[in-house]
Amino acid sequence: MMEKMGDGSTPFWLPQNQIRGVAIHFPSNSAPPPPSKVMAGSIDMMLRDLNLDAVESLPEDFDPTTVINDPLPPIANDALHTNGVKSINGKEKPREIVLGRNVHTSCHEVTEPDADDDDSGDREAYMASVLARYRKSLVERTKHHLGYPYNLDFDYGALSQLQHFSINNLGDPFIESNYGVHSRQFEVGVLDWFARLWELEKNEYWGYITNCGTEGNLHGILVGREVFPDGILYASCESHYSIFKAARMYRMDCEKVNTLVSGEIDCEDFKAKLSLHKDKPAIINVNIGTTVKGAVDDLDLVIKTLEETGFSHDRFYIHCDGALFGLMMPFVKLAPKVSFKKPIGSVSVSGHKFVGCPMPCGVQITRLEHINALSRNVEYLASRDATIMGSRNGHAPLFLWYTLNRKGYRGFQKEVQKCLRNAHYLKGRLTSAGIGAMLNELSSTVVFERPQDEEFTRKWQLACQGSIAHVVVMPNITIDKLDDFVDELIEKRAVWYGNEKLQPPCVASDIGESNCLCVKHK
Amino acid sequence: MMEKMGDGSTPFWLPQNQIRGVAIHFPSNSAPPPPSKVMAGSIDMMLRDLNLDAVESLPEDFDPTTVINDPLPPIANDALHTNGVKSINGKEKPREIVLGRNVHTSCHEVTEPDADDDDSGDREAYMASVLARYRKSLVERTKHHLGYPYNLDFDYGALSQLQHFSINNLGDPFIESNYGVHSRQFEVGVLDWFARLWELEKNEYWGYITNCGTEGNLHGILVGREVFPDGILYASCESHYSIFKAARMYRMDCEKVNTLVSGEIDCEDFKAKLSLHKDKPAIINVNIGTTVKGAVDDLDLVIKTLEETGFSHDRFYIHCDGALFGLMMPFVKLAPKVSFKKPIGSVSVSGHKFVGCPMPCGVQITRLEHINALSRNVEYLASRDATIMGSRNGHAPLFLWYTLNRKGYRGFQKEVQKCLRNAHYLKGRLTSAGIGAMLNELSSTVVFERPQDEEFTRKWQLACQGSIAHVVVMPNITIDKLDDFVDELIEKRAVWYGNEKLQPPCVASDIGESNCLCVKHK
Repeated sequence: MMEKMGDGSTPFWLPQNQIRGVAIHFPSNSAPPPPSKVMAGSIDMMLRDLNLDAVESLPEDFDPTTVINDPLPPIANDALHTNGVKSINGKEKPREIVLGRNVHTSCHEVTEPDADDDDSGDREAYMASVLARYRKSLVERTKHHLGYPYNLDFDYGALSQLQHFSINNLGDPFIESNYGVHSRQFEVGVLDWFARLWELEKNEYWGYITNCGTEGNLHGILVGREVFPDGILYASCESHYSIFKAARMYRMDCEKVNTLVSGEIDCEDFKAKLSLHKDKPAIINVNIGTTVKGAVDDLDLVIKTLEETGFSHDRFYIHCDGALFGLMMPFVKLAPKVSFKKPIGSVSVSGHKFVGCPMPCGVQITRLEHINALSRNVEYLASRDATIMGSRNGHAPLFLWYTLNRKGYRGFQKEVQKCLRNAHYLKGRLTSAGIGAMLNELSSTVVFERPQDEEFTRKWQLACQGSIAHVVVMPNITIDKLDDFVDELIEKRAVWYGNEKLQPPCVASDIGESNCLCVKHK
Repeated sequence: MMEKMGDGSTPFWLPQNQIRGVAIHFPSNSAPPPPSKVMAGSIDMMLRDLNLDAVESLPEDFDPTTVINDPLPPIANDALHTNGVKSINGKEKPREIVLGRNVHTSCHEVTEPDADDDDSGDREAYMASVLARYRKSLVERTKHHLGYPYNLDFDYGALSQLQHFSINNLGDPFIESNYGVHSRQFEVGVLDWFARLWELEKNEYWGYITNCGTEGNLHGILVGREVFPDGILYASCESHYSIFKAARMYRMDCEKVNTLVSGEIDCEDFKAKLSLHKDKPAIINVNIGTTVKGAVDDLDLVIKTLEETGFSHDRFYIHCDGALFGLMMPFVKLAPKVSFKKPIGSVSVSGHKFVGCPMPCGVQITRLEHINALSRNVEYLASRDATIMGSRNGHAPLFLWYTLNRKGYRGFQKEVQKCLRNAHYLKGRLTSAGIGAMLNELSSTVVFERPQDEEFTRKWQLACQGSIAHVVVMPNITIDKLDDFVDELIEKRAVWYGNEKLQPPCVASDIGESNCLCVKHK
């Protein structure tokens, strides 16, 4: 079935009523401060603020009324806030939210400093205590993280000296803008490394360091659309949600292709859907590691399918979403090689996943010939506009450059091997314990039954979908951590399923009968 | 004239031939390393790497051939690299690039570590020296920066303890995903502060912290389009380039509206263009500070124009691009107030500009009722997808929270006043020296003639367009720095224009006759 994206009907959207009614809980400390605190002597204080501070040289034509008198915006009315406060004490039941928990219940409000805060040091002390508690929670949360493909094991101490610079690679990485506080020389070094990994010559590639995997996908699909304005987007239904977001944003027609049980694209179905639209060019998203099952689409088979259906190389554009495994697959012997020697248009990978980085980032590489379909000059920047974002984080290239230099291709290979071993180990331990699990041959994502208890899921920060959950074995996941996890899971399952009222879920439809170990399939 | 965006014809794009032919210069150190270095004993080395390292417990069914033998991808052929090397020695003239300088000439290549690097410490020492030199250049570049609206004056030392966590606010700020290493509690505190600034109740707003001003604009325009799928986008021709990029990405019809000399939107022309399309809803970008001239569109007049042309409030959507002055205008008495009490749909502001932040970021606030036009559930995240990006930088909210808490509304007001004073001072010094300059009443952007010498422009990192340049007076720009700049400019002008062969440029068409001090207009 073809879906017309972005026309307002949006049939692929989930029912809107599932996501409405987000109750806003107000923190108990967000009630208006007592008038004495906000207003006491505020005019005097403002005058002092405005006139006594050492602001240099006041021009004669300067109009002091230019600045308003009381800069504090009014805050929301009492009733609303009281409502929030009461709800916490249970006197009024707060409105429920449908998905997850509402952050307003635990937010760190920004409060207006008092005039004497600077002197007393109270404010500094308050902020330091909030940050110290936060740091402690981060340590704890980092220790128990298993579900998202983020390598949390990095040490960028050598780069902390650069934290207090406002580093911005605005515009194109290959063309310096007039803003001098940038890190393009590191960014291009990183891009060269990835272009070599994916076999594209230095004078034939273009790319940039993105803010995340989604930006890479938004860019890749946009390049494809600019190359083929009337192209149809094909993506397997297990593609990352950003692919379908792109289709909607860009108002592209999109065909969702079925998947095999493994999560790979079903090329039989792909062929059938291609055949329906032979008159239109094809833009294809190929998953180098799907989000949930870590399945790697067979790039070679996708190309073969296109060729067999009569699509010549000048009538399709392939974007490889390698957010997860784009940096792992090159080191795995049996993996379909991601290479620009094949007829592909772009590859993206995340930087905060396998590499590890304090903030999300990614790398996008495409062919130089394609980028001109997209770019325009921006004189203000003395550059051109070929990226999705304008201002760009200049710290991310430094983090990536640092890690790539330290580890090198060989270092990453070692880590890939370690992850694959440990993923095998995890799968082995789960199945030995009678817990059905699936591990794709080229993957370090272990899929298994969704735990019964949300608290357990949250503690280990498992990503879940339907009846399944997964652990993505990244370089920071040790055997010890996996043992702790499996031991606790076994213990909990004994409680959940011990009285035989509840059975472990059947996951045959998700991971195949052969992998399921439920009552029926074991 | 109406322009159909994103249909492949793209008449608003600048000529493509201006941006082609980007020659790639290869650094002299990117020639292939000597074979002995890469290959010597590589098989032995690989075996040692693969087998002797302390990788825990190898499962019985693990296939060691899973990992490829030599992980080093081949590098580009000699000829290309030699070409690059030669060009630096001047033997072969490198191909010219059209805009700016090519970064490949000075990039820090990522090199593969030798096996003994770990022991010798050579690599660590090499990297430390690169970083130390880089740090020194950042100090120098930061000192001389005037042209971009970035406040480079901040001290986030208290937050450096958090740098080694992978903080990711993936998904919606108000709904926790299962990934536990996030900073939503700080993000929501920051959002609350901005919602109060722009007068929207806590239970009526939605928003998030973006990666930059562009992401805010992309989001605001997208919300507008989802509310009015057949709406026409109106934006003044001095709007930020991301607005027109959005129109192209989203395949929206776009009307460019003329501007006054000040840079403000010309509401006469706006009215005329609205009248042409009374049958279609209107999506309007209102600039709270244009990029080049710092002009503030008159929000009240825009709304009045819409009403007078027969557009009822349910037939238009206004996005306020406050990237530059969105946080300054609320403190300026004469400025048209940006407030959600007026019929506007969204406001965005940059976080790395007036606030100051090591990496680009921004804040986007919209009405909760609109966001449902955009969002969808994403079960994988246990969240919903209403943001442009998926993974989101969790450090940016911490930086913003820290500064907002320290400064408060009153602190920002003081800084706004200081910036306005200093901008007046700069304009005064320029005109006293016979240099035509313009400073919009509500602005801290001083516009003047483009310096003759690119080296001078680069030293002070001035943003230029056509015959004009500008300085954006941010809180870190002191009177001393402005004096240094003006003194040097006066000195240089004596050289450039001393022999009377060259005249200073006329900038009357850019900033108005009354502001121009060229031979003809002084």
